[in-house]
Amino acid sequence: MAKSMSLLWGAGSPPCWRVMITLEEKKLQGYKRKLLSFQKGEHKSQEVLEINPRGQLPAFKHGDLIVNESTAACFYLEKQFQSQGNRLIPDSPAEQALTFQRVMEGLTLTDKLNSVIYYDLLLPEEERHDSGLKRNKETLSTELQLWESYLQNVAAGSYLAGPFSLADVVVYPNVAFAFRFGLSAGRFPKLAKYYSLLKDRPSIRASWPPQWMASTRGYDVLKDL
Amino acid sequence: MAKSMSLLWGAGSPPCWRVMITLEEKKLQGYKRKLLSFQKGEHKSQEVLEINPRGQLPAFKHGDLIVNESTAACFYLEKQFQSQGNRLIPDSPAEQALTFQRVMEGLTLTDKLNSVIYYDLLLPEEERHDSGLKRNKETLSTELQLWESYLQNVAAGSYLAGPFSLADVVVYPNVAFAFRFGLSAGRFPKLAKYYSLLKDRPSIRASWPPQWMASTRGYDVLKDL
Repeated sequence: MAKSMSLLWGAGSPPCWRVMITLEEKKLQGYKRKLLSFQKGEHKSQEVLEINPRGQLPAFKHGDLIVNESTAACFYLEKQFQSQGNRLIPDSPAEQALTFQRVMEGLTLTDKLNSVIYYDLLLPEEERHDSGLKRNKETLSTELQLWESYLQNVAAGSYLAGPFSLADVVVYPNVAFAFRFGLSAGRFPKLAKYYSLLKDRPSIRASWPPQWMASTRGYDVLKDL
Repeated sequence: MAKSMSLLWGAGSPPCWRVMITLEEKKLQGYKRKLLSFQKGEHKSQEVLEINPRGQLPAFKHGDLIVNESTAACFYLEKQFQSQGNRLIPDSPAEQALTFQRVMEGLTLTDKLNSVIYYDLLLPEEERHDSGLKRNKETLSTELQLWESYLQNVAAGSYLAGPFSLADVVVYPNVAFAFRFGLSAGRFPKLAKYYSLLKDRPSIRASWPPQWMASTRGYDVLKDL
């Protein structure tokens, strides 16, 4: 099955990483994959645009079917391979409700991280304001405190919806991303615990970004949060 | 079952409308609901914050379970009431892939609509730029053209993923919202056809925003798109 799948991806992109974790969890190793460079603009290449008209990575195919939105690909793979590998949507209504809720909130976390980390990329110079970046940082800090509160029982091995689930698949790459960009483990201890507890989960270790962006510029952008 | 559900909602909010359409489709009429006013700031009231710490609507409960993210609530209701009412996630892999893909892309459409319609609300006056609003409008126009291309066969009754699905539940309120704010049916004929074809679907008619915002200010904000 995995042989009929192909993934165009970029290193260090949380959306790409989500799909890769899901493929590992569902025992779909052996899919074709090709690493492209954001810095060289390869996500806007013809090769990508033919699969993903948005010119974004991931660009994912299963046979002739295309599912490019990372969370959509996770849902699709879980549904198509429900009984293969690990179940990522729990059975109990309470855990199921929490899984869906945290998956979707995870996309808000992604947006708020991007609004700080990529502030300069998102706005032309003449539209940037110190007050805007400051507000985005405050909003992100409030957001991260919310996630800190969601992880009260993480030390006991309870993740975002209890057992490891699609919520963790979607959110963990954002959390790793935040620490990569300087988030303080002292001020976000539950998130730090979550980060380190799941770091060695086989699906996550196997898909860990190999170089995680060539440049080290901006790696302390979240340190004062 | 519906009697144990409650929804706090705001009129004209596409996220609230999604949940209401899903409840209709799944034959879950008879749930408790309470209309709150965004203009009076009631979405930031204690009543909402106790259910939704983000201070956003919808705030949805099923018994003791809370699912506030609109798309999460749609997924949850479909999963919990799979064999009740209409199936919202098709069985065929191709339609399923398309359903998940369009659901998630629908959230991008929401963001891009908001970045134009609520430009003044999202940014303090000193950070607003004509160039910023212009760029957001261009980005939205490109986005809407993409959706126009997704609806090539709409005249033949084929919706976003073929049969009516969760993709339509999530996206239709955005499309109705766009026309409400002045989108040109002439320049977006497929979207206009989609808008009018689904307007009278029972679940959509039953949940149509009763007043759709008291003010008429800004209702032509998308007319030049």
